[in-house]
Amino acid sequence: MIRVLLVHDGCLMRSALAALLGKESDLEVSGSSWRAAAGQARSVRPHVCVVDVECPGAVMLGTLVGPARGATGPACALLALATAARPGPLRRAFDAGALGYVSKDAGPRRLVEAIRQVAAGERFVDESLAFGFLQAAEMPLTPRELSVLRLAAEGSTIAEIARKLHLSLGTVRNYMSAITRKTGARNRVDAIRKSQHAGWV
Amino acid sequence: MIRVLLVHDGCLMRSALAALLGKESDLEVSGSSWRAAAGQARSVRPHVCVVDVECPGAVMLGTLVGPARGATGPACALLALATAARPGPLRRAFDAGALGYVSKDAGPRRLVEAIRQVAAGERFVDESLAFGFLQAAEMPLTPRELSVLRLAAEGSTIAEIARKLHLSLGTVRNYMSAITRKTGARNRVDAIRKSQHAGWV
Repeated sequence: MIRVLLVHDGCLMRSALAALLGKESDLEVSGSSWRAAAGQARSVRPHVCVVDVECPGAVMLGTLVGPARGATGPACALLALATAARPGPLRRAFDAGALGYVSKDAGPRRLVEAIRQVAAGERFVDESLAFGFLQAAEMPLTPRELSVLRLAAEGSTIAEIARKLHLSLGTVRNYMSAITRKTGARNRVDAIRKSQHAGWV
Repeated sequence: MIRVLLVHDGCLMRSALAALLGKESDLEVSGSSWRAAAGQARSVRPHVCVVDVECPGAVMLGTLVGPARGATGPACALLALATAARPGPLRRAFDAGALGYVSKDAGPRRLVEAIRQVAAGERFVDESLAFGFLQAAEMPLTPRELSVLRLAAEGSTIAEIARKLHLSLGTVRNYMSAITRKTGARNRVDAIRKSQHAGWV
């Protein structure tokens, strides 16, 4: 039996995915919101965590990895559900060490196949996500530029960003110009829009 | 038998919802992307269309209503899957005449219950969506202000917005001030962020 922990913030979609996987006789499925995921992973000790990395709660991905792996037990494989159009979540899943990547545009058989494969310790990458990975690898912004952009996207002014990050106004303006240029955006609002669309901020 | 057409852009979530509803002996379920939904509605002639109004494809909601209703056949009830935090899609579902509203945070039994109720011609509203409806009713922007905001959110400058909407620069600036004031935002970027979060643009 492969123990699977499904992590998704919406109860309805989580139940639906559980109904889908529950048809397979070799899978034992339980579900959790992102908030409760680390605790659930500790008690269920799943072989595979299937996580929707596009949920807002997926910012907690880092907190799941440790408990899922366990202190001494066998390693738990992370399997990310993602879409090619949003390289940001894909990159975060990669950074968290996910072994499998399944597109939300894929058919249900792909997910079942992926679960069995990562449970056996093998990598699984949906070919349709390749373009997203390419974009993820080419993310042009530095971590500092991303911090500036994140604050700008939250509606902070140049002065507020400077204060929060302990930078001068001129430095923040230089960062904003670099961000706009590197993202190929027309202006600040366009840079925010492009980055949000890609899931970077 | 109640014929149900599930409309969702992601193949995986659509299959998962179909697996969930397929357990009910009185439901006959088929699925469609938003793009193909109108055509599917014409051939399947569903009693209930369960639509995820938060998918990007849900901008096509208006094109589904006619074919779903049919020229002469019995009316098809529209049942929207939504979240309370995003009043924009909720409002669009209401404007399209949806009879049922189920929260994505609800348990699966609620969805099944809702489908049977709207198939019988009765309204169904998840109580947890009440706050979202309240916000939807209080949407402060006029359609013209929304057009301006939508272009601003796409990265258009004041000059570009003026040109596209055949307005003077001063008029666009006045609209932007009104938008910022009415949404309680600190500035233009913040107004865009707030409106996107609520799903208005």
